[in-house]
Amino acid sequence: MSAHEAKRQRTQSVDYELLYHPQIPGRAEFIRLLFKASGVEFTDPANEDPPNESGLNGYALVQAACSPRSLGDEEGNPPAFAPPALRHRQAGKDGKSLVIHQTPTIMSYLGGRLGLAGESEIESVWINQIALTALDMNNECHDTHHPVAVSKYYEEQKQAALEKSKDFRETRMPKFFSYFERVLKHNKDSGNGKYLVGSKLSYADTTLWQLLDGLKFAFPEEMKARSPEFPLLFETFYPSLEEEAWLKTYLKSAERLPYSMGVFRHYPELDRQ
Amino acid sequence: MSAHEAKRQRTQSVDYELLYHPQIPGRAEFIRLLFKASGVEFTDPANEDPPNESGLNGYALVQAACSPRSLGDEEGNPPAFAPPALRHRQAGKDGKSLVIHQTPTIMSYLGGRLGLAGESEIESVWINQIALTALDMNNECHDTHHPVAVSKYYEEQKQAALEKSKDFRETRMPKFFSYFERVLKHNKDSGNGKYLVGSKLSYADTTLWQLLDGLKFAFPEEMKARSPEFPLLFETFYPSLEEEAWLKTYLKSAERLPYSMGVFRHYPELDRQ
Repeated sequence: MSAHEAKRQRTQSVDYELLYHPQIPGRAEFIRLLFKASGVEFTDPANEDPPNESGLNGYALVQAACSPRSLGDEEGNPPAFAPPALRHRQAGKDGKSLVIHQTPTIMSYLGGRLGLAGESEIESVWINQIALTALDMNNECHDTHHPVAVSKYYEEQKQAALEKSKDFRETRMPKFFSYFERVLKHNKDSGNGKYLVGSKLSYADTTLWQLLDGLKFAFPEEMKARSPEFPLLFETFYPSLEEEAWLKTYLKSAERLPYSMGVFRHYPELDRQ
Repeated sequence: MSAHEAKRQRTQSVDYELLYHPQIPGRAEFIRLLFKASGVEFTDPANEDPPNESGLNGYALVQAACSPRSLGDEEGNPPAFAPPALRHRQAGKDGKSLVIHQTPTIMSYLGGRLGLAGESEIESVWINQIALTALDMNNECHDTHHPVAVSKYYEEQKQAALEKSKDFRETRMPKFFSYFERVLKHNKDSGNGKYLVGSKLSYADTTLWQLLDGLKFAFPEEMKARSPEFPLLFETFYPSLEEEAWLKTYLKSAERLPYSMGVFRHYPELDRQ
């Protein structure tokens, strides 16, 4: 069997395919962490460029799934608005693939399947609301460098970006961090400051960890100054998660993409001076 | 029995309590529509000001549930980040109340319970992803008048608001509307242009309808000019939904709050000139 053929067979035997832009962690990173935390395999065609059963390679697969002209795919899935999207093989109608988009939809779909959505429905709704609040902060962080138009360059909206970042650092960071700190405190008897809900890892934890990690990259000075105000969050939660074997291994691997020009960007002028 | 006592008894016999700011439709309106569509009762203390078992009245209940100092409530619920929040009586641990926040979490929690989440898990994930995309557009609409800081007045960020609105009208509206139009087209055999997924009403429909209604208030000129480009959306979907008996009744009632200074605001200078 050729290397090409072996790769094709592996691709088709893996249940999950993550469809996202190449070379940036972006919103897909919240989903990648679920797979890494649970040890479940997935393919990432834009970064692996494998041949696929459809005949399309790599990023072309993502672009086809999220095309702004798509009326849905041949497997009966409706159009996808934007990456990230997830293909779950044989989970759609009549054993076809199910394709879904929207990061929170994908996370709650995978959460239960991968054992990262708590131990009861009550825990699962709390996990969902916390993860969504972390994703809201992620969106606000994106808007610090693109407050006016996602379609324009940062340099074209720099004045508004300076003002937005100041508000984000001075008003939004304390509000969000206080919330996460209080959730950890509320759950301290079960979670020991390491888990947000209950006594085991959930996608609320992985999502918050990724958010904090990205913010440390984007706003290193502000984060250093803020950390002592929220000791559970920065002295217990963040470093404890990072000590989990799966995350340590992943962070050292080539699969973990570096931050660059995605959601989390380091513009020193937007950080605390 | 006094009127006061009768009101107290009704409040305690209703399963759901919606916790939100008074006098604006806001994000809570997406949740109100689920109750109205399904005919399930709920209380809305900030607008009804009923006495509650906790001894707090009206908006004080909302403020207590979402306090920025809360470490969780006496019923074991973790802190809520911000309104809207939902109390579901007897659905929490040991028959206590469950309190959840985040509009999408509340919508997916209620969706299945109120019969508005489709007829299979596949439909329910599609409904979720479409509703979330409508809520994303709702957030972007909010940011047209508050691009820099939610904590500041519109007048303090008017220049950025003018630029953001231009991009929202010219870039984002066509992108979002094209997506919704294509979803309706994809589902046309089942939904006849009236339903986004399958052949019955879901919370994707109610959420998109509310978004379009708010946009018509906020950007009347732009919406008039855009409508012919998306005929299923504006000639079939929007008016067909409005013809549903429950929605007609609700829109005529005093419970339907007028748009004012919430997410959807009408600033003529931000609209198409």
